[in-house]
Amino acid sequence: MAIIVKKFGGSSVSTIPKLKNIAKQILIEKNSKNNILIVLSAMGDTTDKLVVMSNKASKSPNPKDYDMLLSTGEQISVSLLSMILNDLGIEATSLTGWQAGIRTDSANMAARISNIDTKRIKLEFSKSRIVVVAGFQGIDSQKNITTLGRGGSDTTAVALAAALKAKECQIFTDVDGVYTTDPRICSKARKLEVLTYEEMLEMSGLGSKVLQLRSVEFASKYNVPLRVLHAHQEGSGTLIKKEEKKMEGALISGIAFTKDEAEVMIKGVKDEPGVAAKILGPIGEANIEIDMIVQNVGSNGLADFTFTVSRNTLKKALQVIDKKKKIMMYESVSSKSNIVKVSLVGVGMRSHAGIASKMFKCLAKNKVNIRMISTSEIKISVVIDQKNLEIAVQALHNEFKLEKK
Amino acid sequence: MAIIVKKFGGSSVSTIPKLKNIAKQILIEKNSKNNILIVLSAMGDTTDKLVVMSNKASKSPNPKDYDMLLSTGEQISVSLLSMILNDLGIEATSLTGWQAGIRTDSANMAARISNIDTKRIKLEFSKSRIVVVAGFQGIDSQKNITTLGRGGSDTTAVALAAALKAKECQIFTDVDGVYTTDPRICSKARKLEVLTYEEMLEMSGLGSKVLQLRSVEFASKYNVPLRVLHAHQEGSGTLIKKEEKKMEGALISGIAFTKDEAEVMIKGVKDEPGVAAKILGPIGEANIEIDMIVQNVGSNGLADFTFTVSRNTLKKALQVIDKKKKIMMYESVSSKSNIVKVSLVGVGMRSHAGIASKMFKCLAKNKVNIRMISTSEIKISVVIDQKNLEIAVQALHNEFKLEKK
Repeated sequence: MAIIVKKFGGSSVSTIPKLKNIAKQILIEKNSKNNILIVLSAMGDTTDKLVVMSNKASKSPNPKDYDMLLSTGEQISVSLLSMILNDLGIEATSLTGWQAGIRTDSANMAARISNIDTKRIKLEFSKSRIVVVAGFQGIDSQKNITTLGRGGSDTTAVALAAALKAKECQIFTDVDGVYTTDPRICSKARKLEVLTYEEMLEMSGLGSKVLQLRSVEFASKYNVPLRVLHAHQEGSGTLIKKEEKKMEGALISGIAFTKDEAEVMIKGVKDEPGVAAKILGPIGEANIEIDMIVQNVGSNGLADFTFTVSRNTLKKALQVIDKKKKIMMYESVSSKSNIVKVSLVGVGMRSHAGIASKMFKCLAKNKVNIRMISTSEIKISVVIDQKNLEIAVQALHNEFKLEKK
Repeated sequence: MAIIVKKFGGSSVSTIPKLKNIAKQILIEKNSKNNILIVLSAMGDTTDKLVVMSNKASKSPNPKDYDMLLSTGEQISVSLLSMILNDLGIEATSLTGWQAGIRTDSANMAARISNIDTKRIKLEFSKSRIVVVAGFQGIDSQKNITTLGRGGSDTTAVALAAALKAKECQIFTDVDGVYTTDPRICSKARKLEVLTYEEMLEMSGLGSKVLQLRSVEFASKYNVPLRVLHAHQEGSGTLIKKEEKKMEGALISGIAFTKDEAEVMIKGVKDEPGVAAKILGPIGEANIEIDMIVQNVGSNGLADFTFTVSRNTLKKALQVIDKKKKIMMYESVSSKSNIVKVSLVGVGMRSHAGIASKMFKCLAKNKVNIRMISTSEIKISVVIDQKNLEIAVQALHNEFKLEKK
């Protein structure tokens, strides 16, 4: 019998009526004869409430105790869903992470799954039971409870799907799939039926927060087909899988963008080995994440160095740069915060030349000035003024005919 | 090093400031060099809230899921207390029931502890850590989470104290000890310094709800000294331990009473073997608990049968008796609900004659009419009119000089 893993996130399980709704869907699907494994997040704001309690108890909570505390959120949601399923006459068993055999390292608050012992789950399947597993948690070799950090429930679902060789790992969310771009920005945005892992990675890294990066990487590594679906609406969602030859037809899959970027320009630094490290080192040490980096070499042996950071870390970044002027040895610094990054994503790019120039021409025709450019194998990103975001996305969506299949 | 087990109930840990208060007490005691193990209940009304959630999910929740749900309450309180202790620089580890090695049978919602594997706790002690264990829960042989039912955290504390051969098991409550009688009824009531297990069983069975019967029985079986203390006040509380020779001095330890009793009189039943079963059988089957039973044999071959039940089950008991008249074969039934039971408790009774007659004389002198009498080895109980409760308790307290040590 095939195994299907279904993961429901916090907003899909925030109330008991929502849990009952999920149980009804399962009741219908039960006839399909698949073995069903459900992974749940904590209900709605449960985790937030636990974090508030922990902050009241301690300014810097002991990580082991913190994981012990937070893991109760998922334990509550799985026990309630299992109760509801059993009430409907569907035999179900709720399991914590450790009961489901999820072993992790000891990095509390951000543990990594080391292996999964599927014995207990298989035993429950052999009794024709639906298994409801608490996401986001596991147990280390000393039998301490651990949590997997942000997006942990998605990781749990994908890891279980991989370990059980599941046919599909379905991620239920509050959207009905992955779109060519944000429908709020471009009304012609179209739901994608299929996408490769790589494309999804570029899309999600750029602001399409449908799936956590880590779970997509995990799915790609173990070749687990992922499907993004709406938790409370019908539909086939978007399937994310390994690249296949027939998929090459699609040149561009979508347009991603991030709105919370800021640009820092450091002018007149020495053009010599080690200068990038001198500038970026202190910024990284201050826990400021750098996104795009561009370096222009000038004619007088001096270079200009431009990079983007998250808008809310701009002030801190400028403070670091000011403080480290003697080490960085630059002539001047300037910054701009009302900028955005727009990216074309598509595996087709690899085998098709001219995508970049088509993109730049399109933007020029629409009077959108490009401030920075950065490219990867399946992505071209440009930094533009924030005021041009909508016009750029809509123009590119039209230019690459993304509204058509 | 000696081991001290400390158990704090729900009302003692209902808020984070209360948990911080407990941590401060532990900080002071840490210098005593004892190994300290703390058992906690869930915070305040947490368990009630979880029960409400479960009722919304299912009318008759699956017991396994129910235990999975309820066990989160204690997991939350232990993780928070451990965080607070670690914050104060006291190394502490929070453990769930299963992590603490508490193995139970599979009777979900009312499991019994079968054995305790103390390996993990001893490992933590060897690292000079304070261990904070979730009460009320364990794990069965299939690794399913179980809960111990009412008073489960007291049972956890006593069982751990027994398994670890602890010097003392301290039960922290919202009273500062066990009193000779209820101070609200008799102002001369005195806190007892020491009491035997048997006396405590009779006292708690009769309305002194300081300790759960089951945990006293458990402590008695494994000879674990129990101490009842106030959670947030200083004092030495009341020690409950095995009877010792020198304790014989105390004739009477205390006066217990229950106010929620009702009396049922069944007159004119055949005085023949099996009649008690005929009458009490159907009442027991209706899940009505019977407390005192008195049978008087008449001269005409007929007997009168009187017993007491909890006041809130009286109506149901009378319905059963009416329905089963043909089987019970009685002449008439009457009942009285405004009655109370008052009991003298003391191990000294066994070696001293005349206690009963002294009690009855005292009540007669105070014009208190006795409706029923029942005796055990260390207890004499009388049923009287509710209006006489205070006068009876005060008169007996004076008569037996309970205000003096």
